[in-house]
Amino acid sequence: MNNIAKRSGKRGMPPGSVIYTGIPRTEKARIDIIDYHESKIDVKDDVAVEECFKFKDSPTVSWINVTGLHETEIIEKLGEAFGFHPLTIEDIVSTDQRPKMEDFGNYVYIVLKMIYIEAPGASITSEQVSILLGNNFVISFQEKAGDVFDPIRTRINASKGRIRKLGADYLAYSILDAVVDNYFNILESFGEKAEELENEVIKNSTPETLNRMHGLKRELISLRKSVWPLRELLSGLGRGETKLFKKSTELYVKDVYDHTIQIIDNIESLRDVVSGMLDIYMSSLSNKMNEVMKVLTVIATIFIPLTFIAGVYGMNFEHMPELAIKWAYPAVMAFMASIGIIMFFFFKRKKWV
Amino acid sequence: MNNIAKRSGKRGMPPGSVIYTGIPRTEKARIDIIDYHESKIDVKDDVAVEECFKFKDSPTVSWINVTGLHETEIIEKLGEAFGFHPLTIEDIVSTDQRPKMEDFGNYVYIVLKMIYIEAPGASITSEQVSILLGNNFVISFQEKAGDVFDPIRTRINASKGRIRKLGADYLAYSILDAVVDNYFNILESFGEKAEELENEVIKNSTPETLNRMHGLKRELISLRKSVWPLRELLSGLGRGETKLFKKSTELYVKDVYDHTIQIIDNIESLRDVVSGMLDIYMSSLSNKMNEVMKVLTVIATIFIPLTFIAGVYGMNFEHMPELAIKWAYPAVMAFMASIGIIMFFFFKRKKWV
Amino acid sequence: MNNIAKRSGKRGMPPGSVIYTGIPRTEKARIDIIDYHESKIDVKDDVAVEECFKFKDSPTVSWINVTGLHETEIIEKLGEAFGFHPLTIEDIVSTDQRPKMEDFGNYVYIVLKMIYIEAPGASITSEQVSILLGNNFVISFQEKAGDVFDPIRTRINASKGRIRKLGADYLAYSILDAVVDNYFNILESFGEKAEELENEVIKNSTPETLNRMHGLKRELISLRKSVWPLRELLSGLGRGETKLFKKSTELYVKDVYDHTIQIIDNIESLRDVVSGMLDIYMSSLSNKMNEVMKVLTVIATIFIPLTFIAGVYGMNFEHMPELAIKWAYPAVMAFMASIGIIMFFFFKRKKWV
Amino acid sequence: MNNIAKRSGKRGMPPGSVIYTGIPRTEKARIDIIDYHESKIDVKDDVAVEECFKFKDSPTVSWINVTGLHETEIIEKLGEAFGFHPLTIEDIVSTDQRPKMEDFGNYVYIVLKMIYIEAPGASITSEQVSILLGNNFVISFQEKAGDVFDPIRTRINASKGRIRKLGADYLAYSILDAVVDNYFNILESFGEKAEELENEVIKNSTPETLNRMHGLKRELISLRKSVWPLRELLSGLGRGETKLFKKSTELYVKDVYDHTIQIIDNIESLRDVVSGMLDIYMSSLSNKMNEVMKVLTVIATIFIPLTFIAGVYGMNFEHMPELAIKWAYPAVMAFMASIGIIMFFFFKRKKWV
Amino acid sequence: MNNIAKRSGKRGMPPGSVIYTGIPRTEKARIDIIDYHESKIDVKDDVAVEECFKFKDSPTVSWINVTGLHETEIIEKLGEAFGFHPLTIEDIVSTDQRPKMEDFGNYVYIVLKMIYIEAPGASITSEQVSILLGNNFVISFQEKAGDVFDPIRTRINASKGRIRKLGADYLAYSILDAVVDNYFNILESFGEKAEELENEVIKNSTPETLNRMHGLKRELISLRKSVWPLRELLSGLGRGETKLFKKSTELYVKDVYDHTIQIIDNIESLRDVVSGMLDIYMSSLSNKMNEVMKVLTVIATIFIPLTFIAGVYGMNFEHMPELAIKWAYPAVMAFMASIGIIMFFFFKRKKWV
Repeated sequence: MNNIAKRSGKRGMPPGSVIYTGIPRTEKARIDIIDYHESKIDVKDDVAVEECFKFKDSPTVSWINVTGLHETEIIEKLGEAFGFHPLTIEDIVSTDQRPKMEDFGNYVYIVLKMIYIEAPGASITSEQVSILLGNNFVISFQEKAGDVFDPIRTRINASKGRIRKLGADYLAYSILDAVVDNYFNILESFGEKAEELENEVIKNSTPETLNRMHGLKRELISLRKSVWPLRELLSGLGRGETKLFKKSTELYVKDVYDHTIQIIDNIESLRDVVSGMLDIYMSSLSNKMNEVMKVLTVIATIFIPLTFIAGVYGMNFEHMPELAIKWAYPAVMAFMASIGIIMFFFFKRKKWV
Repeated sequence: MNNIAKRSGKRGMPPGSVIYTGIPRTEKARIDIIDYHESKIDVKDDVAVEECFKFKDSPTVSWINVTGLHETEIIEKLGEAFGFHPLTIEDIVSTDQRPKMEDFGNYVYIVLKMIYIEAPGASITSEQVSILLGNNFVISFQEKAGDVFDPIRTRINASKGRIRKLGADYLAYSILDAVVDNYFNILESFGEKAEELENEVIKNSTPETLNRMHGLKRELISLRKSVWPLRELLSGLGRGETKLFKKSTELYVKDVYDHTIQIIDNIESLRDVVSGMLDIYMSSLSNKMNEVMKVLTVIATIFIPLTFIAGVYGMNFEHMPELAIKWAYPAVMAFMASIGIIMFFFFKRKKWV
Repeated sequence: MNNIAKRSGKRGMPPGSVIYTGIPRTEKARIDIIDYHESKIDVKDDVAVEECFKFKDSPTVSWINVTGLHETEIIEKLGEAFGFHPLTIEDIVSTDQRPKMEDFGNYVYIVLKMIYIEAPGASITSEQVSILLGNNFVISFQEKAGDVFDPIRTRINASKGRIRKLGADYLAYSILDAVVDNYFNILESFGEKAEELENEVIKNSTPETLNRMHGLKRELISLRKSVWPLRELLSGLGRGETKLFKKSTELYVKDVYDHTIQIIDNIESLRDVVSGMLDIYMSSLSNKMNEVMKVLTVIATIFIPLTFIAGVYGMNFEHMPELAIKWAYPAVMAFMASIGIIMFFFFKRKKWV
Repeated sequence: MNNIAKRSGKRGMPPGSVIYTGIPRTEKARIDIIDYHESKIDVKDDVAVEECFKFKDSPTVSWINVTGLHETEIIEKLGEAFGFHPLTIEDIVSTDQRPKMEDFGNYVYIVLKMIYIEAPGASITSEQVSILLGNNFVISFQEKAGDVFDPIRTRINASKGRIRKLGADYLAYSILDAVVDNYFNILESFGEKAEELENEVIKNSTPETLNRMHGLKRELISLRKSVWPLRELLSGLGRGETKLFKKSTELYVKDVYDHTIQIIDNIESLRDVVSGMLDIYMSSLSNKMNEVMKVLTVIATIFIPLTFIAGVYGMNFEHMPELAIKWAYPAVMAFMASIGIIMFFFFKRKKWV
Repeated sequence: MNNIAKRSGKRGMPPGSVIYTGIPRTEKARIDIIDYHESKIDVKDDVAVEECFKFKDSPTVSWINVTGLHETEIIEKLGEAFGFHPLTIEDIVSTDQRPKMEDFGNYVYIVLKMIYIEAPGASITSEQVSILLGNNFVISFQEKAGDVFDPIRTRINASKGRIRKLGADYLAYSILDAVVDNYFNILESFGEKAEELENEVIKNSTPETLNRMHGLKRELISLRKSVWPLRELLSGLGRGETKLFKKSTELYVKDVYDHTIQIIDNIESLRDVVSGMLDIYMSSLSNKMNEVMKVLTVIATIFIPLTFIAGVYGMNFEHMPELAIKWAYPAVMAFMASIGIIMFFFFKRKKWV
């Protein structure tokens, strides 16, 4: 519910106001550039924003990665230099965007969510990733440093493989692919949680189990909210809605689209599994109650009639002839024992004991 | 359910009857005009309706804001002067409109709901806002005075920013944006309510909690009813269904559309959260019953057999040899104590105590 | 379920058989004619069917209203004279039609349901209304006399307002509008029922409440079945699917369409409200059980141990030294009282008393 | 679930294998022919398959009705003579087809389900009906003899009515109409069952009632599976997807389509009714438990404290001064009676008695 | 949930990496070739991958069947020789593909799931089957050896029937048909399981029954996940989305499509049946509890008042005149018996005994 609050903090601002709405951060924003073509590569780490400007029209493929959205003036400078629409710049720093793709003709703006589980067992946190694809540049924006893009960097450096031979659109696709692949990690961890919960619910459920079941359900809903719009986005890119993605790259984008569908399928399955667990939990509550009731019923219905009989012979009437009979006491005791035993077998047949 | 009643009050009236269907009001209706272009601004507060007529064809952008729909003759006069269709005038004052957009060629009629929470903790109330966009004028109608449009007025006065440079369509967009942004406030308050309820349901739920849960659910349904048609409306405007919105403004409208989608997403999430709470509430009822039953069962099943034993030795048979034995009393007491202790550990193992 | 039975009564009949399938009626069918143009009006009540024929091609707008569908020969004669398709005539008298619109080129056939609540508190009954719109005539068919069309007649007589100036399509629209406006009355009464039930379910629910809740739910489903197809029908008319509705009238039809959407929205909301009530009812059952159980548990767990203690000192052992002690009786009484009090405070802390 | 088994019996067969998959039958298959035009009619019962061949290109309308699909060689011969596609012949005898329509250019293949209730109270059984419409012939295939087509035969014989004047497409429509009209009988019987069950569930529900409720639900699901694809099929025919249905017949087909929609509407309503019954059943279980609990609680909480008091005065302490008091016994009895009465009124106020 | 884990194992790999993600296998991969035209057939078992290359452009129809995906180099060699896209080769060995069809112009790539039940009573396992259809070759890939394709081989060998006369597209269709027909086996076994469970739930349900119900539900969901995308795939092939399937084969593909729809219908029905069972299970829990409660209530409410009476006459008051009366004891006993009998008939009337 965090993003609801954040959004309302911007109320009354004119549209296009460049205001960072994410978690406050203190670390310095950082810009890294990789500029490459098939036979050449040029890596510049932690550069000043002005150094990026020259890559706007260079014939090589340039990847400018900006980590940290809280220093909005950097992003505004970059945006101005590369000719981005004011709404694009606003969207980059408003970290509550719904995943979407917007084609501005000379560049495509793609925004999506990266999902992390920071510590094992912790709940998920999300980060906004913006990708701006121009003719021969890709600018990516992250909220904080992470290692999801490292394999891409490695592949570019390796100077083998397709990535060095293909254009900026293939690079943009690679970033999308890395983000989507990361969702599978989350799903895996959710799957494990679900299995754990399932064991718990069958063997030894507590009210705490129910809370954790609902926690998982809510995380699944929130994951779905991040992935669902991706479907549309990638289906649009795969159908050639933008000219900046070449025909040959579209096939790759379709592949990411397939992964997204798979993720959604898996989320739906997990949701079904969690609903099933809820049914099991509810019926286990009823079963427990049944067990408690059976114990009470067995004990009470055996001993209440016996206590009555004992009560009868505890009455103080003067004329109770059986009291004087010698074998009366053992006879009554035997009678009570037999009632008890009959009752017991009655319950045995009913499978209550 | 108020609006159902209101509507039926109009039954039998010819279509196009200009009858105010909102909450009866006594304060005077008020007309404010802001007329501006890039270098000039002219603000007139609380003017007579006739003063508005001249702005119909003026080349500057004119914003006429009417507060109060109960003085229908004012609206009829305005409508006649600006050439509005009778149905438009009827719709402006019928405060039970579903959000919609209608293009009449020379003007566009947009009607939507503004949602308020008047006091903290109170339930939501809604007000109907109508926006009429002509070539170079915007006429907005509100039911009562409010401060949602103040930031727009400030921005126009400030004579900087985009708003003074762009046309009437941008002004109409700004009003739409202000109304939609206001929904985030409501969502925020709903999110807080949901969190409160969640704590309550886990720690200390009462039947009252259930009522409040259903109250929240109903408010979410009613909010959704206001927002859902907005989606369609804004998607239509963003796709260029009307020529009065210029190509350049469409991008901004799409941005509001994105916000609407986000609001709907959040409403759906909150609904899921509330449903989850209902499950927790129901299972907490079962858990409470279980606890009550366990106490009853433990006490009853320990003492009922013991009472029976005591009853046996309270019988008045003449020939009960054990009664005369000296150590019989302490032996029976010890026997009873051991039965009690065994029972207790039995329940301990079952985790009932 | 009535209409299921009716339909099957026609089994084996050739298609196009003109057989009345409604509730059997004995009152005479009645034909009323209003013939008008802007400056002239001619009202004829209770005329013979042959008098209608001349209005087929008259240049004035003619409204022929037929009350009573059971005298099928009248309808057959009318149909023949005005050149209606055999299926149209069959549909007029088969009172189990789903609302629909059929364009036969020279006339449009519209069939819909009028909903009544005949007595306050009674359940809804529906009546089939057929509207046949030709170039300059409207023929409407009702099952029984009612007052829903009276305001239209009054407006035509009043010779002011739009209706006298506009054509037969505007008249057909006015009839549609009157029928749809009538739904709001039903909704209003349903809203009141729902509010009553809600109070009942919170304060004092009985199994009867549940039956009434399901009764309301079923009436909502049946209302929805009548309204839902109207949506499609009116959307078709509003989009200009038939040429007999003029461009200028389409705007009015769209207005009725908006009302239909509003009615559907309200039905859905009411359904949600009723589902919510069901949850409250079910949890109130659990709450009641809880209350009963608590009383039982408190009383039983306080007195069962005490009864055991009393039983112990009722045993007849010869050697029970405490029996001879003077202060033993008050001491045991005090002990039992303190156990009772401790128990009571234990339950107090658990909030069971 | 029968048809699942049947289907798998064909596993591994090459496509187009003509294998009968229905219930094994021993009666001889039978072919009846009616050949007619407006002024002539020629009826031939129980003919050899070779007699049919000449009707392929005769200018009169020929209706060949084949009863019994288990003699596959007859159908193969017919198919060859009339030039049907191998898949059509396979589909005719595979009695587990989903209703569908296939246009092969020179003929249209329509397959649908006829539903029977063979004995009152029995569950539904279905039979596959195939209709092959050529230019001037209709061949219909049934699994077993029945009387659903008799009214059509009668109408053809009667030589009046539309059917003799119109072509083979009208005959095909008449068969479709007869099959669909038959569904209303089933619905009627389901409606009666539902009403019965509803009374039972309110007055006197047993676990058996639940089973019957689920039986009805399952039959509704299975009916829906037969009817739902009809919707699509008839909508296709009504929209003129095949040229073998003339424009003039399309109107009639649309009428059958309307009936199908009505049937689906009724099925959905019945499903809602059954779900409602389930809620009532479940809450009636809770109510019964509540009643049982109240009786137990009232009796136990009245007598347990009284028994305790009696126990107190049954103790054998030597020094219990009140035992010697003359009026002590009646006083204690009166005290106990008043406790009982107070308790009773307490429960009365709680509405437990 | 297995495939979630597998997928994430590939994280960080460049797209198009040919990595086998299925269950590790040790058996050697095996290639079988059948090359045929109408009058000639050439069968080669267990050949080297190089032998396949010559069949790429041979005019005869060639079916290359590869069993075992773990020897990826074989698949890479094949792919290179036949000119497959890198993504195709990656997809063949990634065994977590969603069923899909991709047209690469010179070949069509179809991937789908084969479902097995390896031992009776075991849960389902799935295997990925890839079909590559070129102009005159079909290459199929399986994870492990199986007998599903044997009937096709037999039919080709038999040199009669359609298969030898028709092209590679008919062969591809035959493989699709075999895989889809196999689903009916699974459905049959699910149907049996459902029937078993249904009997169990009515007669003698245990918490284990619930687990098995959810197991079946989960298997149905997982089956649906395999079948649902097939619908789209086959509908695309049947609509002629790819030119490699000839017009004449499309009819056959539509037939497989119909089977898929039937399978989906049956899965949905089974899901409904399982949901129904859940309701029955839940209500059977309540019924059991009711039964337990009734026994407790009957016994307790009969004997608690009687015990009280016995307790009264066990009191030790000195002045209890009735104790001395001779017939008092039998009178009290008769009184208690009559109370017991009255209670018993009261419960009899309430149907509790």
